[in-house]
Order: sequence, then C-alpha cells, then structure tokens
Amino acid sequence: MKFELTILGSSSALPTAERFATAHVLNVHERFYLIDCAEGTQMQLRRFRIPMGRIHHIFISHFHGDHYYGLFGLLSSLNLMGRKVPLHIYGPAELETLLKQMTPQGESYLFPLVFHTHRYDTLSLLLDTGSLKVYSFPLDHKIPTVGFLFRESSRELNIRKEKIPEFNLGIKDILRIKTGEDYVTSDGTKIPNRELTLPPIAPRSYAFCSDTRYNPDYVRFIQDVTLLYHEATYGHLHIERAKATRHTTAREAAMIARDARAGQLVIGHFSARYKSLDPLLDEAREIFPSTIAASDGRTISVPSVKVKDH
Amino acid sequence: MKFELTILGSSSALPTAERFATAHVLNVHERFYLIDCAEGTQMQLRRFRIPMGRIHHIFISHFHGDHYYGLFGLLSSLNLMGRKVPLHIYGPAELETLLKQMTPQGESYLFPLVFHTHRYDTLSLLLDTGSLKVYSFPLDHKIPTVGFLFRESSRELNIRKEKIPEFNLGIKDILRIKTGEDYVTSDGTKIPNRELTLPPIAPRSYAFCSDTRYNPDYVRFIQDVTLLYHEATYGHLHIERAKATRHTTAREAAMIARDARAGQLVIGHFSARYKSLDPLLDEAREIFPSTIAASDGRTISVPSVKVKDH
Repeated sequence: MKFELTILGSSSALPTAERFATAHVLNVHERFYLIDCAEGTQMQLRRFRIPMGRIHHIFISHFHGDHYYGLFGLLSSLNLMGRKVPLHIYGPAELETLLKQMTPQGESYLFPLVFHTHRYDTLSLLLDTGSLKVYSFPLDHKIPTVGFLFRESSRELNIRKEKIPEFNLGIKDILRIKTGEDYVTSDGTKIPNRELTLPPIAPRSYAFCSDTRYNPDYVRFIQDVTLLYHEATYGHLHIERAKATRHTTAREAAMIARDARAGQLVIGHFSARYKSLDPLLDEAREIFPSTIAASDGRTISVPSVKVKDH
Repeated sequence: MKFELTILGSSSALPTAERFATAHVLNVHERFYLIDCAEGTQMQLRRFRIPMGRIHHIFISHFHGDHYYGLFGLLSSLNLMGRKVPLHIYGPAELETLLKQMTPQGESYLFPLVFHTHRYDTLSLLLDTGSLKVYSFPLDHKIPTVGFLFRESSRELNIRKEKIPEFNLGIKDILRIKTGEDYVTSDGTKIPNRELTLPPIAPRSYAFCSDTRYNPDYVRFIQDVTLLYHEATYGHLHIERAKATRHTTAREAAMIARDARAGQLVIGHFSARYKSLDPLLDEAREIFPSTIAASDGRTISVPSVKVKDH
C-alpha cells in the first residue's frame, strides 16, 4: 500500500533552470492528490509519469501566483483529454472567480468542477475517503494561507492467523473480532480480543506547510506526523528577510519538525539565491537530523510500519 | 544584423513530452519580441538562453489559454528580477482585465505595464521602432484573432566607397547622397545618385499566422514575406476536423505561403495526435517546397540579402 510523495517543484516564486515553483503529488494507494499547482505542473506530471487522469482532488494553499498559475493549463489539458469525472478543487475564494473567467477556450469544462472554499480560522476536514482524511489548518503568511494534513484512517485489527484453526473461527467470527469484539467459544469461554488480534498498521500521515512564517501555533495540528514538508525559503543568515516576507528559515523549519515529533522533514520552496543547499541542510540537521532537501522529481516513500503486538 | 526566429513551443493546445504550446521569440538586432506566451514560456526562455530582461514587447494573438497562460508567471518573474523599464503588451481586451486580477502577490507590478488593445477589422500598425514596424491583421478563427507582421524598415542607400576619394566627398555630402540626392561638383557637374550609391539591403520580414482557418483573405497582408510561420494543426486527411475547429491543414498552409510568395514556410501548432510529422511536411512541400517543421528550441535565421546593383 503506497504512501508516496513526489516533489514536482521545489523553488520559491522565481523558477530556476533546475527548479519549478511549488507543486506536490501524494500517491496514497494509487490515488493521486495534487497539492499546489505552479506554472508547468502539467509538464512535470508528464515528465515524472504521474497519471493526470487519476487526480480527483487538488489542494491550493493560497492565492499567490507561484502556487496556482499552472492550474488553468492543467484543467485545459484534462478537458482536451476527454475527462468526464468530477474534479474537486480546495482553494481560496478568489481562485474560484478566476477559474470561471479562464476556461481554456472561453467555454465550459466538459467535466464537473466542484470548488470548495477555504476557511482560515481552524482545523477543517476537507475530505474523507474512508481510508484517508484530509484537513486544512491555518498558517501564518502575508495573505490567508492554509497547510494540509493527509492522514490514513486507523485500519482494522489484524487477526492472528494461528487462532483461526485453534478456535475453528468462521468468516463471520473473524469480521467481528477484527472490529474489536471478544470471542465466546461453544463451551462459553470468553477469549479476550487482544489474544486473538494484532494491532492495525500504524496510520501514516503527510503535512504540507507552505508558505508560512515560523509560528509554533500550528504545531498542534501536525503532532506526530510521519512526513512533514515545511518551507525553508531562506537560511537562518537571512532571518530578517524571512520575517519581512513571512517565510521560514531552514533552522526554524527543523524546530517545527522537532516540536511536532515528525518522523521525517523535507525542506523546500528555496529562494533562487542559493546555489548550494548544504548550509540550509546543515542548519536544519543540527536541530532535526532526519531532514532532506526537496528537488524536482524526488520521491519519498513512507513505508507501512507493522506493529509487533498490542 | 540578426533577424532570427526561435520557436519556444510548437504544440497546439495540448502540450506533449517534447512540445510546449505556442510561443515564439523574434530577435531583431538583439531586441527580442515575444509572440504568444503559453504555459512554460519563461522556462523555455531560460532553457534556450534568451535574455528575458531584453523583451519589451509581447504580442498575444487571441484569448485562448494555450496562447497566454504563461504570461502571468513571466510577468511575476520579471517583477522578482527587479524590472523597472516599461513592458508593452498587445492583446485582446479580456486579457487586460485578467492581468489586473492576477498580479503575482496581489500587488502591483514594479514596472509600468502598458496594454494595447487589439482591433480586429484591418491591418493596424502596432509599433514603429525606426528600424522595425510591427502590424496586426485579422485572421479567421473561432474567436477574434490577429496575425502579426514584423518588417524591417527600408534602410538608406549605401555609398559606393570608391566614389568618396573620386569626388572628395565630405560627411555632409555623404549623408545627403544616402537619402537619395544627386551630387553637384564644384564645377557644377551633376552626378546622378544611382552612380554614387548601391541599393539598401532588402528589408526582411516575419509573419505569424496562428490560430486560423485557411482563408485567402489575409494573404494580402503578408505579400512577399521573407519568413512565414503558419499553423498546420492537422494533416489534410483531417480537413473536416480543421474546418470544424477553425484550423488549417499543412497543405492549406503551403497554399497560403505560395500565394503570398513567401521566402520560407515554418509550420507548427501541431495536434498531439501526430507521432511523426513527415506526412504533414510531405503534403506541404508538394505545394511549397521550402517548408520546415517547427520544434521547441529550433532557430531560423533570415540572412541579410545584399542587392548587387540598382
């Protein structure tokens, strides 16, 4: 069961020869979730062989061009490719207005476009597929901006295989036990559920925090996240510039990861001024060793972790 | 003196792995003119090492997304790069409205943006730099669309070098002779201008015709053009589709080139359905042999042609 992030663009507002501006794809069990959609996102999707037609939900963090300028071309291409199934976009209200004006040929899209307008005050459940929940939560940027949290739903208990012959369990028994029930044998003996089952696989999660000024307030929304992407537009040398533009330094991103007890940190949204990212990685790893740098096309898999016992 | 076209995107509305949608750059004596601006144009400008800061005029043919979706990102990048000098955009009125809504960070551009709204009824002079004139003229598409004609201005006559010592010509004499005047020697003898000069270098021209249905009406605007770019979205096999979508087949593009007595024809704006362009090139060359196919990054130089004598 895949839970895999692909970075499509790792630059901040100004793209470079190697880095496009922000877009991410999260692959959860071969369902693809697009997060932000900078100019050229559709080209990167082709380049990295991600099936566009299997994207049904697009999440836009805020109304700055380097996070949405690629949306119009992507929608146009989906239209030309004959898409019929609905597409859901979660974004700022201004974007909905623009989308109505910028249909590709001045006509309507052939597929239903369902727009969900952000709220900015608290944690909000945007989507629940049964196996995955997606939330937005407020960040701290120049304009209203949200981060996103993708979290696998807690799965059912796993039956201990050796218990099936031992108690001669039928399929109905097994289904009940997997929901947490105890089992009562034909002679009336009650077998506690925890003797019959193993805990579910630990749910995995991914949080996207960009763009934002460093602010401990949003750490509560991403506690214990498995994989954290946090913007690190600047090195700590440029902290004053980070404050003025409402961005975060690499060191501060690591502080967020540490305080959230994240499993792994990916930093990105790099200012075009940095030829080498080593200083940014170094300062982050001093605080949070499990830090890597985003690059266009880089894929980060989050493996399933089997829990050994209750 | 350069007169050189670079193709940045050669696909029709749907980009492919090899072809972006429409954008061209014409380099006239190291001044760069951008024609259409599909998504990813700023990336292609970087890739093909064309200096963005030296673009001062952008020409948008019509209000279909595959001809302007890259404009917002390009303007945003120019802004971030600290542009101060004015930028002129020639385009449809709807685009001006959009540009006002889509400033990169919700703020104004730091440079003056001068918008010139198209008229669609006749040949219109858009720009005269002294050495170059740019015109728009009506094409025949689903929505109002213009083509563009770039024409070097007729240059002054060239003095025959051997005549300078022969008649002991001063700088003022030379300047007058170059404007076409005859010369009168100190003893009153009149020397006809054509004995003193060579004709100017033949002015070069470039015409951009996309998107359009084949229509002989606009041939009059591009008579004797040196280099003609004409859309050829389809092969003639798909003529019915071309008619329905107001596009042109490769064979029809060649008929326009032949009837305009063009020097060379470049076909482009290819439908993504064609894996090989050979059939399109073949059918065009049957009618107009000097035909080539556009590809992303291809540069076509138009050499100066020295006229030997009057």
